[in-house]
Amino acid sequence: MSEIPYSPGLEGVVATVTRISYLDVEHERILVRGYDLIELARHRSYPEVAYLLLYEALPTPEEATAFERQLVGHAELPDGAYRLLELLPKTTSVMDAVRTGLSFLAGYEDPHVLADPSRSANLAKGMRVLAKAPTLVANAYRALHGQSFVRPDGEGGFVDGFLRMILGTAPDPTARRVFDVILTCYIEHELPNSTFAARVIASTLSDLYGAVVGAAASLKGPLHGGANEAATQMLLEILQQGGAARAEAYVQEKLRQGERIMGFGHRVYMRRHDPRAVLLQEFIPQLLDRRPEGQELYRIYRTVEEVMAREKRIYPNADYPIGLLLYLLGVPIPLYTPVFLCARIAGLVAHVVEQQAENRLFRPRVRYEGPPYRPVPQPARR
Amino acid sequence: MSEIPYSPGLEGVVATVTRISYLDVEHERILVRGYDLIELARHRSYPEVAYLLLYEALPTPEEATAFERQLVGHAELPDGAYRLLELLPKTTSVMDAVRTGLSFLAGYEDPHVLADPSRSANLAKGMRVLAKAPTLVANAYRALHGQSFVRPDGEGGFVDGFLRMILGTAPDPTARRVFDVILTCYIEHELPNSTFAARVIASTLSDLYGAVVGAAASLKGPLHGGANEAATQMLLEILQQGGAARAEAYVQEKLRQGERIMGFGHRVYMRRHDPRAVLLQEFIPQLLDRRPEGQELYRIYRTVEEVMAREKRIYPNADYPIGLLLYLLGVPIPLYTPVFLCARIAGLVAHVVEQQAENRLFRPRVRYEGPPYRPVPQPARR
Repeated sequence: MSEIPYSPGLEGVVATVTRISYLDVEHERILVRGYDLIELARHRSYPEVAYLLLYEALPTPEEATAFERQLVGHAELPDGAYRLLELLPKTTSVMDAVRTGLSFLAGYEDPHVLADPSRSANLAKGMRVLAKAPTLVANAYRALHGQSFVRPDGEGGFVDGFLRMILGTAPDPTARRVFDVILTCYIEHELPNSTFAARVIASTLSDLYGAVVGAAASLKGPLHGGANEAATQMLLEILQQGGAARAEAYVQEKLRQGERIMGFGHRVYMRRHDPRAVLLQEFIPQLLDRRPEGQELYRIYRTVEEVMAREKRIYPNADYPIGLLLYLLGVPIPLYTPVFLCARIAGLVAHVVEQQAENRLFRPRVRYEGPPYRPVPQPARR
Repeated sequence: MSEIPYSPGLEGVVATVTRISYLDVEHERILVRGYDLIELARHRSYPEVAYLLLYEALPTPEEATAFERQLVGHAELPDGAYRLLELLPKTTSVMDAVRTGLSFLAGYEDPHVLADPSRSANLAKGMRVLAKAPTLVANAYRALHGQSFVRPDGEGGFVDGFLRMILGTAPDPTARRVFDVILTCYIEHELPNSTFAARVIASTLSDLYGAVVGAAASLKGPLHGGANEAATQMLLEILQQGGAARAEAYVQEKLRQGERIMGFGHRVYMRRHDPRAVLLQEFIPQLLDRRPEGQELYRIYRTVEEVMAREKRIYPNADYPIGLLLYLLGVPIPLYTPVFLCARIAGLVAHVVEQQAENRLFRPRVRYEGPPYRPVPQPARR
């Protein structure tokens, strides 16, 4: 044990071998099964990249059509899931509602299929979770806000259907395209905390639902998936406090107080650009006229970015532009992290499949710094 | 990155500093805040050891009484939780029901308290989860088996109430004492997969419920908490196939087929005895007359143990005697892992408190062995 040094947060520690993805910081590339994620986002749709993650090759047009038909065909939830959403206390966060709903859905699987850690069983379960998650997310928000449920109607594709359930209306082609790029940028990212949590859980040969539930629990954290919501809240706070003219002072003040600016920096990228952020920023100008405050928010957005680059040499990660894009698209803020989760499920499924195919139980050790051995004082037995 | 070697499953890797507990293999001791867990199990009650984990010192008699009163006072579930249990498809496993129920209960917390990662907020939430988990476990089983709910009635203490809700009748002093020792043996064990999963999730500053839900997902796995159920199923299978006379052949056959015998061995203890198993075995003879097949099961139990020691030099871990003890106590087998979870919640809460008090996000890296970079083939845009 002593020959392996301790690295807090396992920073820089290789926790697993994978064939799924890699943050190639040197070449500033996010490799997904060998492809550059940014090229994938530019040239392929989210369902095609999900297919790549699950089946290890890009689909032919026929395979893509069949896969998307499968996803759309499995989007409906059992009635019990809608009743569960109605039962949730209204104080529940959408992320917790989705975590509860995903956990609940496990009970609808055949118990033998649920317990089966084989590749084929995991892919079948994974496809169902991927298909149902958007319906769960959109309706969890609706239930918690006293709105009526929206059922998946089988119209359009996976991305179109997802955005339609959130917005309650059919998205135009620009909105659909931007939402597709957002989902693709979120689809897979090597071994972030949530993916690691899923692999840790899967390594007990527990079921895929449990691994995804654990990832959902992780993703909720403000240091992880919650960052897209926090970044947007900050932009809106600056808007309320005086707009772009106030942005520099706001950031300087936060930095002086040692506070973290959400949506910036990333342990792996360090002082480099997150290539996803670079791609995503391209789409912001197309959406600015969709909200009256769009132009001013974008000025705030750019000022905060400039100050962070100048003062800290820290650059936006994907959460920063995605927060603004989702806001401009009209997606309610409490859905940002749940949308992230839905997108990431394809990556999580790939990791659970891989983990259980060549399993090794995760069971690290600790460095104990508690009290040394002391005898138990023995009271009179009660 | 390259200077830190890769250890599959993070075996032997120090993942965190802790003051909570340590498997001191050299001295064959499980240290819990400096005390030997076996001494604690012999001389203190489960709630006292839970108090030690949460508040870092053994309670005075007054503190112990007040803490137990708190636990008993918070044992009742909100009505919605009972309705949730009724909604679960009957194919749901008890562990998944409990995972769903714990996730659901998060919604009853004040959102600010839920999001607060401070020590005091986590201890308050942790006490409530610890208090409610037994009620959830007993009633999840009842709901899934079409039995009526049993409400905590505030009679007796935490351990007594838990066992009473499971059995439906008041336990005698021997049963209560054995159940207390079982819970104490399960209360905390350094950094097993479930505790590690909880710390990984907590490190995003996600909430305590999410961390416990992730641990529940992990504990379900047959390589982890599920082992107590599997070990008991094996004893019953041998009983059905011919009893103790058949035990040696049964084990030899499994070993020849390279199958794992559940309830034996442990990565950390390696070829040494698990001190919990040594303590727990003492209690088996006291319970043998509670079931007609008790004596024969115990003969099978000892034969399997002898064969494993002789053939593999692998010894029972805590799951092996606990499985038999719970069976003799009349606890239904699908409740063994949920009981383990309830006991472990005290340890999990201590770890979440510690993790978030001195937080460092878990974010390891991978060794990528997938395809090297290849350009995305660009199809005609659809």
